[in-house]
Amino acid sequence: MVVIGGGTGNFVVLRGLKSFPVDLSAIVSMADDGGSTGILRDEMGVLPPGDVRQCLVALSNSSRLMRSLMNYRFENGGLGGHSFGNLFLSVLEKVTGSFEKAVEEASKILNIKGKVIPITMNQVRLKMVLNNRKLLEGEKEIYLSQEIDQGYKSIYLEPYPKVNPGVINEIANADLLVIGPGGLHTSLIPNLLVEGVCEAICQSDAKKVFVVNLMNRKGQTTGYKTSHYLNELVRYLGKDVFDHILLNGQKPPKTLIDVYASEGDLVENDLDDPRVILASLLGTPAEVAKKDLLKRNLIRHDSKKLAQELMKIVDHL
Amino acid sequence: MVVIGGGTGNFVVLRGLKSFPVDLSAIVSMADDGGSTGILRDEMGVLPPGDVRQCLVALSNSSRLMRSLMNYRFENGGLGGHSFGNLFLSVLEKVTGSFEKAVEEASKILNIKGKVIPITMNQVRLKMVLNNRKLLEGEKEIYLSQEIDQGYKSIYLEPYPKVNPGVINEIANADLLVIGPGGLHTSLIPNLLVEGVCEAICQSDAKKVFVVNLMNRKGQTTGYKTSHYLNELVRYLGKDVFDHILLNGQKPPKTLIDVYASEGDLVENDLDDPRVILASLLGTPAEVAKKDLLKRNLIRHDSKKLAQELMKIVDHL
Repeated sequence: MVVIGGGTGNFVVLRGLKSFPVDLSAIVSMADDGGSTGILRDEMGVLPPGDVRQCLVALSNSSRLMRSLMNYRFENGGLGGHSFGNLFLSVLEKVTGSFEKAVEEASKILNIKGKVIPITMNQVRLKMVLNNRKLLEGEKEIYLSQEIDQGYKSIYLEPYPKVNPGVINEIANADLLVIGPGGLHTSLIPNLLVEGVCEAICQSDAKKVFVVNLMNRKGQTTGYKTSHYLNELVRYLGKDVFDHILLNGQKPPKTLIDVYASEGDLVENDLDDPRVILASLLGTPAEVAKKDLLKRNLIRHDSKKLAQELMKIVDHL
Repeated sequence: MVVIGGGTGNFVVLRGLKSFPVDLSAIVSMADDGGSTGILRDEMGVLPPGDVRQCLVALSNSSRLMRSLMNYRFENGGLGGHSFGNLFLSVLEKVTGSFEKAVEEASKILNIKGKVIPITMNQVRLKMVLNNRKLLEGEKEIYLSQEIDQGYKSIYLEPYPKVNPGVINEIANADLLVIGPGGLHTSLIPNLLVEGVCEAICQSDAKKVFVVNLMNRKGQTTGYKTSHYLNELVRYLGKDVFDHILLNGQKPPKTLIDVYASEGDLVENDLDDPRVILASLLGTPAEVAKKDLLKRNLIRHDSKKLAQELMKIVDHL
């Protein structure tokens, strides 16, 4: 089972799947350049640790203490905003001499189930040219833009990266390939922009599942429905390769939708397609940790429910 | 065998003793407030990690990678100057809720031989009043002062700290007690300023060894000989409790002494006392790592030779 994505979406899927008897690989976007990760890239010249760290923690079988350590965020001063786990990965990269070895060593230290594989080992920046010809430089700028739903001409990684060879193998040998959930332009598409990835996905005999996001992102995917998300991926893949489209069909409490309104609206299904699976996938607000009380985290997937739906598909393979 | 000290001196003794079959405990000064440690104390409100980290690394049986990780120093930006090992200990303190648990967990993770025991768990500052009535606030100010050899009225920890209970036990049950080498005012004496420590040392049946520093520190211990060092310790202990005074009798190459001259002069023996052991204790310059090429590190103890001399004493117990 191969999961492709980045960021928190990836974390949620992997954390859920961790407790099932599957052979798991997480393929991770390497385009992040915001926050702690961005500072480390600039100051240490390392590859982006943030998304990889989230996957490692999601798959870790080490102690709760070790996971708390990895997720710890400094609050004040020169260290403020840094995640300890990011520092850990970046220092490992410096000490071992490569990000590949750093991920390998961290995987051992954190005793992870499965594998975490960066999509590329090249230093890349994500860039986007909007329809109004404005250039957005870097994942952070794209993440913060409110103009993307006005349309964009192109999105690309610079320099054009070589794929991490392990990625192609994993995709070729997968039985089930899961794409999403995650930021469409900032976590999902960046994987498809790496040389050879789309071809590998299209050629793979794996069943392919697209897990659609719960919520749209205002100014980016405003008003998007299932078909819009699907079309965006197909634009890069070259054809509609998906066997299943998994989507939440559960209505969140109106109060939460209202609170969330400034961030984005609910993704609704507009496809009358036998491939669409509508399931109850929402996490209860109680599941949301206090420190995560950002609006955008109020409505999120329940990792267990999501994994159970994916396992139903596995059971029919 | 109980080693009392702090800083690099402690590291050298412990690293040497690690390979011998002795039951080792390191009692560590908690007065450091300079550099990375000082910033962490200020920004995170933690106890000083630096000296404890050095002891943990010295006693660690974990992989070379893990030790490199702990010793890694960030070079640029907001992280510049920080030691990753210090961050590790401080985050452990935050996540576990106490420095005691942090040291315990780090000891497991680093698979250390023996025990590392902070002299106190109280937040203290080292202060010194010079003969000219000038107050030096903090270990860093004292470390940098060039006026201490003009004499000082008092040195104290503020607030007056409770001793870490484990310390008294260790000292009481020791067969051999080693004090030094290390910064006289900044690493050795701060241990003697903690409630009950001097009494415990005086009452212990352990044989007591004082390992005298190789070099004086200019403006602090300029021109000091064995007797001056001994008298300084006796001033706090209340009596001369030492059974052995171990001192280097090997002459460093003149070129090194010349290079070192701006930092300090060689400590010479002025005691005609059967307790004095003059031995060849110098590390070869080849042993000095490139990154340690500060003048003050050019002439240093060879941890193996030092440990061998201490083990001769153990063999005669």
